[in-house]
Amino acid sequence: MSVAKQMLQVAQNAKRASQTLASLSSAVKNELLQQMAQALLNHTEALIEANEKDLVAARVAGLAPAMIDRLALDAQRIRGMADGLREVAALLDPVGEVTGMWRRPNDLQIGRMRVPLGVIGIVYESRPNVTADAAGLCLKSGNAVILRGGKEAIHSNLAIGKVLKSELERMRLPAAAIQIIETTDRTAILELLKLEEEIDLIIPRGGEGLIRFVSENSRIPVIKHYKGVCHTFVDASADYEKAEKICINAKVQRPGVCNAMETLLIHQDIAETFVPHIATAMRAQGVELRGCKTTCEFAADVQPATEEDWYAEYLDLTLAVRIVANLDEAMEHIRKYGSLHTEVIITRDYENSQRFLREINSSVVMVNTSSRFSDGNQFGLGAEIGISTTKLHSFGPMGLEDLTTRKFIVLGDGQIRT
Amino acid sequence: MSVAKQMLQVAQNAKRASQTLASLSSAVKNELLQQMAQALLNHTEALIEANEKDLVAARVAGLAPAMIDRLALDAQRIRGMADGLREVAALLDPVGEVTGMWRRPNDLQIGRMRVPLGVIGIVYESRPNVTADAAGLCLKSGNAVILRGGKEAIHSNLAIGKVLKSELERMRLPAAAIQIIETTDRTAILELLKLEEEIDLIIPRGGEGLIRFVSENSRIPVIKHYKGVCHTFVDASADYEKAEKICINAKVQRPGVCNAMETLLIHQDIAETFVPHIATAMRAQGVELRGCKTTCEFAADVQPATEEDWYAEYLDLTLAVRIVANLDEAMEHIRKYGSLHTEVIITRDYENSQRFLREINSSVVMVNTSSRFSDGNQFGLGAEIGISTTKLHSFGPMGLEDLTTRKFIVLGDGQIRT
Repeated sequence: MSVAKQMLQVAQNAKRASQTLASLSSAVKNELLQQMAQALLNHTEALIEANEKDLVAARVAGLAPAMIDRLALDAQRIRGMADGLREVAALLDPVGEVTGMWRRPNDLQIGRMRVPLGVIGIVYESRPNVTADAAGLCLKSGNAVILRGGKEAIHSNLAIGKVLKSELERMRLPAAAIQIIETTDRTAILELLKLEEEIDLIIPRGGEGLIRFVSENSRIPVIKHYKGVCHTFVDASADYEKAEKICINAKVQRPGVCNAMETLLIHQDIAETFVPHIATAMRAQGVELRGCKTTCEFAADVQPATEEDWYAEYLDLTLAVRIVANLDEAMEHIRKYGSLHTEVIITRDYENSQRFLREINSSVVMVNTSSRFSDGNQFGLGAEIGISTTKLHSFGPMGLEDLTTRKFIVLGDGQIRT
Repeated sequence: MSVAKQMLQVAQNAKRASQTLASLSSAVKNELLQQMAQALLNHTEALIEANEKDLVAARVAGLAPAMIDRLALDAQRIRGMADGLREVAALLDPVGEVTGMWRRPNDLQIGRMRVPLGVIGIVYESRPNVTADAAGLCLKSGNAVILRGGKEAIHSNLAIGKVLKSELERMRLPAAAIQIIETTDRTAILELLKLEEEIDLIIPRGGEGLIRFVSENSRIPVIKHYKGVCHTFVDASADYEKAEKICINAKVQRPGVCNAMETLLIHQDIAETFVPHIATAMRAQGVELRGCKTTCEFAADVQPATEEDWYAEYLDLTLAVRIVANLDEAMEHIRKYGSLHTEVIITRDYENSQRFLREINSSVVMVNTSSRFSDGNQFGLGAEIGISTTKLHSFGPMGLEDLTTRKFIVLGDGQIRT
C-alpha cells in the first residue's frame, strides 16, 4: 500500500474512533488514563528494552549526547510518564461544559457547549515521553490522536503506543483512538498534512525547522510557536532589589527554554545606577552581556550588541541589554523585535503597568514577576499540550480547553422565523 | 511595482495601522463608525454613480440578472449599509474584556484579556455592501482590514472605501486601517495569501469555488464554511403540528440560504401517518420531494432519491426525505452526509433531546425550532462576519468576539520561579 493510502486509512480510522471518544463519560476516560499509567509501569522492562534499540542506533549514527539524553528512557522517566497520565486524569473534563446560555426575545435559549476538536495530529522529535503526554491530553479532551515522532525514537514510541493501545482494547474502546505512525519516511508527514477532511488540528513540537516544515506544508490548521524572544523592561520607578531578583531568575533559572529572558530593557533615568548593578549580578551568574552603546558606557565587560542580537533567542547564558528613553520606546522595541511570547514590566507606577498590560499584545504580558512563569502548569491549566504565539484559536500556553471548540446549542419550543 | 510588492506594502501598512487600532477607546471607535455611516448617506449620489459603472460593465459582460441584482446599489441599500455601521457601533466592544482571573498558590493573579487579532483579510464576490459591513466589524474589534472584492464591483467598492477612509483621515486615524485592493487580477489574492507574517486571518465570503481557491492557496489561517446541508429529524414522539410548522419554515421561508433545511429525517414509527401529512403540506408550498424507498411508499409524487441527494445543498424548493429506524440511525445519517452546519431534532422525549444535543457535533444543534434561526443576529451576537463549519477558533455564526483572541495577563509582586 502506498504511503498516501496508509495515511488516509490512519486518518479515516481516527475520525471514526473520534466519534466514540466524543461521547465517552469523564469517568470512563479517567479510568482509561489510570489503567494506562499502571500499564506503563508494569511494562517498564519492555519499554527500556525497546528504547535500548533506539539508543544503539543513535550511538551508531553518532547523535549528540544532548540528543541521546532526550531520547533515553529509564525507570524514573517511565514513572514520570505514568504520573503525567494520572495528573491528566485528575483535571476537570472540558467536554460538555456550557460556557454561557442566554434567552432571546422569542424565548429561544442559546448556549455554547464545549466539544472535542475531533482528530489531532502531533508531529514531534526525539522525546518519547511526548507520546504518552500528548495521547493523555488528547484522550481526556475526547479527541483521537495521530502521533508521528522522530525516527530516532521509533522503537520507543511504538512500544509506548502498544502498551497504551492494549488498554483501549481491554476497555473495548476503539484502538484507532491512538495511532503511532510506523513509517519514518518524511513523505508520511506530507501526506498527513493534506488530510483536512479527516484531521482537525496539527501541533508540531520541536525545533524551528520542524515547525516551519509542518506549517508550510499543511492544509490543516497548525498551532505553533517558532521561538521565545522574551523581554523584561525595568521602568524608572522599579524597586532595584525586586528587579534584580526577577531579572536573574528570568535569565538564569533555566536559560535553555523558550520563556527565559533574552533581552533586558532599562529606562534611561536609572541606567547610570541600575546598569552597573545588574551587570555585576549577571556576571556573577556567568551571564555574558551584549549591550547598546549606553549600556557599554555604564558597565565594563559588555560586548557591543549588533542588530541581530535584538532578534536573538540565545537559549543560553547570554543577554542583550538596551537603554530606552521611556515606556513607549520599550514597547516599540518589543513590537519590532519580539516573538509574541512573553513580556514583563517591572514598575511601581500604576499607569505604566496598565498601559503595558493593555498595549503589549504578546501572548503573555506580566507585571513584576519572572517570565519563567509563562507555562500552562504554572498558570494552573494543568499539563501543557503546547504554546501558541499565533493568535487563531489559542494564544499562549495551551491546556485541555484548547483541544476543544464550542458548538451552539439552541432550545426551542416550536419557534419559527418570520 | 509588481503585484507581490504592492500586496506586501498593503499588508505592512495594515500591520502598522493595526497597532494604533488595538488601543483605541470604544468611544473613539463608535464615533468613527457613526461618522462613516453619515458619510455614506451624504455620498449617496456619488456611490450610485460609481455603482452605475459596474452595472454597465456587468450588462455588457452579460452577467445573470440575479448577479446584477446583488451588485446594484440604490438609496435604500446605502441606507442599509449606514444602518449596519450604526448597529455595530451600538454593540459592546469585546477588546479589553477580561474573561476570567484567578489566583495561584504563590499569589500570582492570572487572567485572560481579549485583544484584536490584528490584520484581517476579507475576500468576497459581488455584493458591495460587504465592504462597509466587514470594515465596520473589523474596526469595532480593533483590527485593520484588507478588502478584496470581486472585479464586477470594483468601482462601487473603491467608492465606498474612499468615503470610509476619508472619515479615518478626518479623525486623524491611520488610513491604512481600511484598504481596498485595486488590482482585480487574481494573482493579488495569491500574493496576499502568502503574507502570514502580516495578516492574521482570512475570511472568504462567497461561493464554494472561491472558498476552496482561498483555502487551498493560503498560508494564513482561513475561517470558512463550504455549504449548509442542514437536517431536521422528526422523532417518534414529535408533536405533528409543531413539526409541520417548523419543517415548512426551515424549508420554505428562504430556501436559497445556507441555514435552510435540505434533508428531512423521519422516525419509522410515525412514517405511515407523518409522511403523507408533511408531503401534502410541502407540495402545497411548491416543494419537490426526493425520498427513500419507504417515503415513496407512503406518499405520492415523490421522486426516488439517489445517493447524491443525501449530500445535496439544493438551495431551492427541493427536499430530500428519509425514513430512519431510530435516533441512532438519524445521527449516523447526519454524521455521514452532513456539513457540520445546523441540525435540528423535533421531539417531546427528554432523553432523545439530550442525546441529540450532546452527540451531534455540528456547529449548531437545535431542539424544536427552525434551522433558519442559525444566524449571528438571531443568536444575539449582533452583525455576522461569517459562519465557520471548521472547528478551529470559531464554530458556527461569528460575531465581534470571533475577531479577537485572548492573551494572558499576569499580575505579580516580585514572585520568582524556584
